[in-house]
Amino acid sequence: MQHISSDSVLRNLLVTISYDGRSFHGWQIQQNGITVQEVFQNALRNIVGEFYDLKGCSRTDSGVHANMYCISVKIAHPIPPERLKAALNRWLPQEVACLDCSEVAPDFHARYACKSKRYVYKIWNSDTRNPFLNGYALFYRYPLDAELLNRAAQDYVGKHDFTSFCTPDKRKMGDMTRNVKSCEVIRDGNLVTFTVEADGFLYNMVRIMVGTLLDISSGRLAPDSIPKIIAKKDRSCAGITARPCGLYLDRVNY
Amino acid sequence: MQHISSDSVLRNLLVTISYDGRSFHGWQIQQNGITVQEVFQNALRNIVGEFYDLKGCSRTDSGVHANMYCISVKIAHPIPPERLKAALNRWLPQEVACLDCSEVAPDFHARYACKSKRYVYKIWNSDTRNPFLNGYALFYRYPLDAELLNRAAQDYVGKHDFTSFCTPDKRKMGDMTRNVKSCEVIRDGNLVTFTVEADGFLYNMVRIMVGTLLDISSGRLAPDSIPKIIAKKDRSCAGITARPCGLYLDRVNY
Repeated sequence: MQHISSDSVLRNLLVTISYDGRSFHGWQIQQNGITVQEVFQNALRNIVGEFYDLKGCSRTDSGVHANMYCISVKIAHPIPPERLKAALNRWLPQEVACLDCSEVAPDFHARYACKSKRYVYKIWNSDTRNPFLNGYALFYRYPLDAELLNRAAQDYVGKHDFTSFCTPDKRKMGDMTRNVKSCEVIRDGNLVTFTVEADGFLYNMVRIMVGTLLDISSGRLAPDSIPKIIAKKDRSCAGITARPCGLYLDRVNY
Repeated sequence: MQHISSDSVLRNLLVTISYDGRSFHGWQIQQNGITVQEVFQNALRNIVGEFYDLKGCSRTDSGVHANMYCISVKIAHPIPPERLKAALNRWLPQEVACLDCSEVAPDFHARYACKSKRYVYKIWNSDTRNPFLNGYALFYRYPLDAELLNRAAQDYVGKHDFTSFCTPDKRKMGDMTRNVKSCEVIRDGNLVTFTVEADGFLYNMVRIMVGTLLDISSGRLAPDSIPKIIAKKDRSCAGITARPCGLYLDRVNY
């Protein structure tokens, strides 16, 4: 069923999409549910007539959203990038949008070429839920002091071994050092947003960073505990893994 | 099945809710689908043990949202308003939130006591859809000049017979005069928002006001055509009825 044309005639394309993660079991194709990779692969095949190997910029968990997600794919079909964008928007489901298509160098790889990524985590902080943010933000009813959490979050910044902020995963052993370039917690009315940019992220890293801040807020952890948790290199020292619904892959930098 | 306690022991409560209209066939109970009135009535019965007659501040169409919707209801149960709010938020589905409960004068009626209402209509104006606004805004791909539309919309302001902006409905004949207090079209990035406040609205009035502005934008109608359309008192002279997904009941003033 799968047919890949010979490499010599292939153009390498960078496709940027956004998607509402409520409808998907993450990016990567799996048996148990519909994934973004699967619907994208099907849409592309309907346009160019062949299955192609997609290189996604990262895995995302089930329920996680993407304001910007990048895919590189080598295709034989001569369709111009602008027309491919329009065609993808016709074939993709409403929950996915193609934002841009462009031709890139033959050796460009959406995952390995990535210099940094930015994630955003949204928290609806009120004693009353917001029906419009159901599945789009974490509903957290206890008071959050965004300024306190912003100060605490600065301890994430820098080059650290983030073992304590990674769900153990046999598939992903190796160097656990990541360089967090910036971290910010801001409040806009009842919406509290955590934004983090790093050269890369470990499995569940942002969700554990957020969960640790929530545990600092509730008093289970001290405001200055993040450096100690990092030093321990032990997942059990950090906070909970915050639910996926508040997480957005926001920007991918090449 | 329905049981109403004697009027003498009833307290009159004003309940404010918000809801995501994607999940509902409007406010009013009907055979064909789940409505907000139905889920609210069921939640209330689970708490106070009886069915009560709900007075909603307005009908809303299928798919229309509410940032603020008001209900008055006379109940015999002695539950304090704050506890009723919390209990409603446990029993209501995620797509509805109870924002407030308070006791009001015995003759207060959520619909008849209303001095004015404000509606908001959201348009995602871009050549590419926004997957997060699917069902939450109208996706309109042709350029909209918000300043031009804002100037045209000022012709809606004032006390007019809005017959041209009403879907004919046998159930609602009578005075077609409404006093539009303010109208505004603003752009924030790709999001164009139409806001209108009036002492009352006819059936589909906001959606036809928006559709007429879209027809002005496309050139099918002239920018100065609104006073002429109002004068004709003929629905066929106005623009299309814009889709319900962009419409939000935003505020109810008593």
